[in-house]
Amino acid sequence: MSAPPGVSPGRLERLASGLEELECSALLVLAGSARDPDMAPFAGPVHVHSCFVLGRRGQSPLFGYLTPMEREEAAATGLELLTPEALDVARWARQGAGEERLLAEVLSQGLLLAQVAPGTRLALAGRTTGAGIVAVVTRRLEELGWSLVPAHDLLRRLRKAKSEPELDAVRHAARGASAALRRVAELLAATVERDGELWLQGERLRVARLRREVASSLATAGLEQPEGNIVAPGAQGATPHSAGRDESVLRAAETLVVDLFPRGCLFADCARTFCAGAVPAAVEEAHRAVLDVLGRAHRALAPGARGWDLQAAACARLGELQVPNPVADPGTTRGYVHGLGHGVGYELHEYPSFRRHAGDEGVLEVGDVLTLEPGIYEPAAGFGVRLEDLVWLGPDGVEILTPLPYDLDPRAWA
Amino acid sequence: MSAPPGVSPGRLERLASGLEELECSALLVLAGSARDPDMAPFAGPVHVHSCFVLGRRGQSPLFGYLTPMEREEAAATGLELLTPEALDVARWARQGAGEERLLAEVLSQGLLLAQVAPGTRLALAGRTTGAGIVAVVTRRLEELGWSLVPAHDLLRRLRKAKSEPELDAVRHAARGASAALRRVAELLAATVERDGELWLQGERLRVARLRREVASSLATAGLEQPEGNIVAPGAQGATPHSAGRDESVLRAAETLVVDLFPRGCLFADCARTFCAGAVPAAVEEAHRAVLDVLGRAHRALAPGARGWDLQAAACARLGELQVPNPVADPGTTRGYVHGLGHGVGYELHEYPSFRRHAGDEGVLEVGDVLTLEPGIYEPAAGFGVRLEDLVWLGPDGVEILTPLPYDLDPRAWA
Repeated sequence: MSAPPGVSPGRLERLASGLEELECSALLVLAGSARDPDMAPFAGPVHVHSCFVLGRRGQSPLFGYLTPMEREEAAATGLELLTPEALDVARWARQGAGEERLLAEVLSQGLLLAQVAPGTRLALAGRTTGAGIVAVVTRRLEELGWSLVPAHDLLRRLRKAKSEPELDAVRHAARGASAALRRVAELLAATVERDGELWLQGERLRVARLRREVASSLATAGLEQPEGNIVAPGAQGATPHSAGRDESVLRAAETLVVDLFPRGCLFADCARTFCAGAVPAAVEEAHRAVLDVLGRAHRALAPGARGWDLQAAACARLGELQVPNPVADPGTTRGYVHGLGHGVGYELHEYPSFRRHAGDEGVLEVGDVLTLEPGIYEPAAGFGVRLEDLVWLGPDGVEILTPLPYDLDPRAWA
Repeated sequence: MSAPPGVSPGRLERLASGLEELECSALLVLAGSARDPDMAPFAGPVHVHSCFVLGRRGQSPLFGYLTPMEREEAAATGLELLTPEALDVARWARQGAGEERLLAEVLSQGLLLAQVAPGTRLALAGRTTGAGIVAVVTRRLEELGWSLVPAHDLLRRLRKAKSEPELDAVRHAARGASAALRRVAELLAATVERDGELWLQGERLRVARLRREVASSLATAGLEQPEGNIVAPGAQGATPHSAGRDESVLRAAETLVVDLFPRGCLFADCARTFCAGAVPAAVEEAHRAVLDVLGRAHRALAPGARGWDLQAAACARLGELQVPNPVADPGTTRGYVHGLGHGVGYELHEYPSFRRHAGDEGVLEVGDVLTLEPGIYEPAAGFGVRLEDLVWLGPDGVEILTPLPYDLDPRAWA
């Protein structure tokens, strides 16, 4: 296994300057599992339960683990280790320390071994340790002289530009999402219409069937859906956060928004909208507008561009096309009602940010992986159209990681 | 949707007495997602991100959420709501409070609305909020006068005996795990042996192929594998925590441990061991011993029995059979090297506990869902045998939730 993606020289420099900004002596990532999005960039794809990372300025990160049984997995991180023996885990266990107290003592031992002196500030991250445990641990570390500040934002900054192995993992998830969307198109293309409903293989085609096919397609690529998915027909697709109801029967001339965000080691995110049968003029028009905005966004992608500027341009264009949007019509619930995109990585929503008042985290740079996902939603007319691409800003230009047709007609996908 | 499983009168009584023991005025479950194992019993299967529950003695729990967009999902919990409007979320956002400070202020507002007075103790749980956020939130709540103690153990006690909807969810996952194990048996039964290797459809059969089939089978049932799985041939199966390497080719006369622990809303957990081709005498003998111990454990299951007593009985029997075990040979790495079982639920490892010094949480009661999983491991001989059943202690007796053959020979499964 190659070195974990988070310990490249570039990342370590960012870590050092981030710690300096926060006036911290070290980063402490506390995780209930090495898959924790704040931990995985350091640990890589290993199977370790309770663990921590200590990242000091200008030094290699240390990886601490608590169970001797996990020694081989811990070694696979390639990091310098703080072993259960060095951390005196058995001693605290013998003294009958509860889970919380044991972790607190083990962490203080780790900090001392790493020469992170009491009296200094620690930047604290990690997203998979129980809140009650964190409360006890942080209180104890503060009693012992360390103070703590949150570092989740620092970690998101470190993870913003992807390393080569991270990009590989996103590519893998993106290929899986693309194959699953093609499978949906194939099934839709094979339907016949009866009394306005879509039938497949002698049965009404329901959202549940498409979900099963999507899950199965993703599973064969080793991908899961920890955040679920969106398979939302007609009016259900007219509110962007509606997941779609399993029992719904698909209908001809109705939109179907399919938004997939599977995860392997990292996430991918991609959406298409279908409409089998005769496409209503309003849907056709919305699709044309969304595609126009998406094309403009693609052309505006470049290192140095701001996510918010892309969002503002999308709103301006939609305004020209008479589509309500958050800039011209704050709080609108029809038309374009959300942001243009977001970074994707160990979490589904990461940096770069598309928010108006974002700082550095809103500026695109080489290595970023992000979505572009304009949409138009018309609850009263009972339809939604969203097209979402996942892209990577490479050193030689933009690469679309989800190269798929944009057609509403699933038969055009063949 | 019916009432969430965690708000039955029985659960609320347990909560009240648990809070009394901890000398707490209320439970605070703080979650980054409603799927959080400490949150899901209260919220049910809804899609809500940042949220919290306040559980007070003798009163219905309150569910707080932070985003107006999630109002419909929040309403689906069936709980009394603390809305973003009531919690003044917009006010703190307008004042530019960061994520951590906003959450702290919103929680203090929620506590005051719920009449949980400062100066009292709160029992804190939830496993999906960032550690840096928890550190800020708990410090702020302590500044405002509340003190905090961990409540993860209390939550595990509440979740120990399963409700009807929870049992349904475990049953569903158990059916999926069983179907996937049958699929593995079917594939193994269809192999042919060439030079000691197992071939299927003109290719060497590798662990990766079985993993794909398992994932696909589980996916069609809407199940995922957030904790992975174990598909461990030969010597890899001789250490119980080895997941098995994808590239390994399966061999005749070699054991294959397949341990699946998929999750829908709740987990299931089940394992079988296969051996295609001529079964070595030592494997045959180990299998017979494991099956003997498993049968005895099944017969000893009853409300009031202690997990540790079952473990001690298993060790005693294995001792009679000359198999090293943790009671006779503490720290042994061959023979029987682990515990006999564990509870299963929203987490893969829950109560009842099989630990020697467990208190109430080690006593079986009606409603418990647990595994029985004796195994024998011989690293030097390069094999492992584990058989794991998932059972439910119903009011009228024990039900095996994973009724599957125990045969080593996959052809005997047909």
